[in-house]
Amino acid sequence: MRRRNLLGAGLLGLGGAAASFSNPGTQSSVSAPSISRNRRQLNMVTTWPKGLPGLGEAAERVAARISAMSEGFIEVKVFAAGELVPAFESFDAVANGSADIYHGADYYWTAKSPAYPFFTAVPFGMTAQEIMGWIDFGGGQALWDELSGDFGIKPIQGANTGHQMGGWFRKEINSLDDLVGLQMRIPGQGGDVLRALGGAAKSLPGGEIYQALQTGNIDATEWVGPWNDYSLGFYREAPYYYGPGFHEPGASLAVGINRKLWDSMSASEQAVVKAACESTNHTSLGEFTYQNAVYLDILTKEHGVQLRSFPEDVVKAMAEASRDVRAAAGKDGIEKRIYESFETALASMSNWANVSDGPYYAARELGRKR
Amino acid sequence: MRRRNLLGAGLLGLGGAAASFSNPGTQSSVSAPSISRNRRQLNMVTTWPKGLPGLGEAAERVAARISAMSEGFIEVKVFAAGELVPAFESFDAVANGSADIYHGADYYWTAKSPAYPFFTAVPFGMTAQEIMGWIDFGGGQALWDELSGDFGIKPIQGANTGHQMGGWFRKEINSLDDLVGLQMRIPGQGGDVLRALGGAAKSLPGGEIYQALQTGNIDATEWVGPWNDYSLGFYREAPYYYGPGFHEPGASLAVGINRKLWDSMSASEQAVVKAACESTNHTSLGEFTYQNAVYLDILTKEHGVQLRSFPEDVVKAMAEASRDVRAAAGKDGIEKRIYESFETALASMSNWANVSDGPYYAARELGRKR
Repeated sequence: MRRRNLLGAGLLGLGGAAASFSNPGTQSSVSAPSISRNRRQLNMVTTWPKGLPGLGEAAERVAARISAMSEGFIEVKVFAAGELVPAFESFDAVANGSADIYHGADYYWTAKSPAYPFFTAVPFGMTAQEIMGWIDFGGGQALWDELSGDFGIKPIQGANTGHQMGGWFRKEINSLDDLVGLQMRIPGQGGDVLRALGGAAKSLPGGEIYQALQTGNIDATEWVGPWNDYSLGFYREAPYYYGPGFHEPGASLAVGINRKLWDSMSASEQAVVKAACESTNHTSLGEFTYQNAVYLDILTKEHGVQLRSFPEDVVKAMAEASRDVRAAAGKDGIEKRIYESFETALASMSNWANVSDGPYYAARELGRKR
Repeated sequence: MRRRNLLGAGLLGLGGAAASFSNPGTQSSVSAPSISRNRRQLNMVTTWPKGLPGLGEAAERVAARISAMSEGFIEVKVFAAGELVPAFESFDAVANGSADIYHGADYYWTAKSPAYPFFTAVPFGMTAQEIMGWIDFGGGQALWDELSGDFGIKPIQGANTGHQMGGWFRKEINSLDDLVGLQMRIPGQGGDVLRALGGAAKSLPGGEIYQALQTGNIDATEWVGPWNDYSLGFYREAPYYYGPGFHEPGASLAVGINRKLWDSMSASEQAVVKAACESTNHTSLGEFTYQNAVYLDILTKEHGVQLRSFPEDVVKAMAEASRDVRAAAGKDGIEKRIYESFETALASMSNWANVSDGPYYAARELGRKR
């Protein structure tokens, strides 16, 4: 295991030099200010398998942009899940300083606080642009800073998958009865919703899902969207692809930085790291939107995938159960404050979506029919 | 007028110094690489009135982030419309080097090329996350670079308003007949669509709209969304607020950089400028999403604004006219290539929206009704 401690505290000062010299491009002599720059070699652990499209790429983008913007003064080495620490130990590794940064999904830390899913995705919650609005302008960031700060971590938005599909089903879902006893891979709050409706929700890592579906251990699974789902081949075992998903309407992925490291950074270094993360959030939302469209076309036209949507009574029951599941995650203390802030912003932005993007998509589809 | 030429070519080399010194924090002597940094003072002209919420702020954010990330080595001074050059001369000013950067809406440059609206917003076109997908992953950026490169400009995404409303109407629109003879402020391709349906589309700058509405010179106007529209007070003259808008489903705003300046920048400087723009695109989409929700609430609850939606036959006729208007903008040469690339990506991402965000918003609304 390579750690940043290899280089002392991972920080070598190259600072304090003052210079005064003549500039060849001008007539006058230029007095330069004192220049102080630190050289840092940082390790980023991730919750993503090596080579995962979209999310693994997003982690690499954050690292590459930090390095490019800092002229290499900050170098970030990215480790796939398991290379330095297992995926689900990323949070602790950064909290205790054995790694510097993580890139991952904050709902993996539900055992630390049941409020973490609000910063990633919750059932019948916010779409990508809505969670961006809540975090940056609706009070979300201050609450997130407080929650993660207590663990010694500074959190920043670092990717967004956009809408995630409802999943792959071997048999069609025609009524609530079809959910009873359904063995489905669906972790987190989405799994809690399925359990509330009588299903058997399971949590399986990405690499084990296909075999579970093939052997009949599960009847259905969700994963991400057409782009990521295609590569795992679920369409060969479960032909019904349900959309829209209700459990992750726009999953926001997080960059978590060791708090002492963050506090030791200059304003300029912090600005570089923040812009690397937020510009990557921009890039990944566009990438998922584009690539999901490309792979939806491949799945439906080349692999006979059957698109389906959940019946109205199933949607209503899922929404009702989702309200309870969200409320259960925000009962006391900071969790209650996060829950209430989230729900207030969700209600407000839902009203806006109902006169803007929601009906726009419907109007555009109506307009395509000649 | 202050110009970058004040300081030669706006670029002062502070470069080439090599250092070798002992670091007080470690035992060993550290050999630092040759450090070469340029100091630049750049002027950014904008197409936004001083203090315009959202878009004016976005220009300021781009500038502030560039300065913060570069430790002040690149300073960008922002000028509101008319302070250095009039809004609509921003493009030429940057092209000829009398300004360094613009922040504005590229569809203002339709006289340069009828394909420019594809990079901002076109009727029944892409939403915010879709245009991000097309530009970054669907071939849009290469075409944009080619189009603007011919004028000596490097373009980058620098803000997005999200969905824009259909506008304020003194009388309800109940049929296509109500559009015939309608005097409405709606510029660009949206105006062409209204003209095709018998309306009288007008182009008026933001500051002149209210009076035109008050005096009866126009019967209706669009502007941006609840947040920006509120400040101009249209609700006092025209109580019917139509959504969704069809003419600008997610307007992408541009940063344009003088090409020679861009080419003179180091890879690190280019990375800083690009991340400043793209992180601002992230921030502004979240800001519009959140603030539009807040101001929609104020308009409907405190000012009696009546929300309306266009009837189905009006939507269908607008969509049909929009197809013709878009096609007319892409008849030959690079315009044809841009049009075809845009339409291919639009069709593909519309299919994806129809199983994801579109029905998700509808399902969430269904689920809110107890």
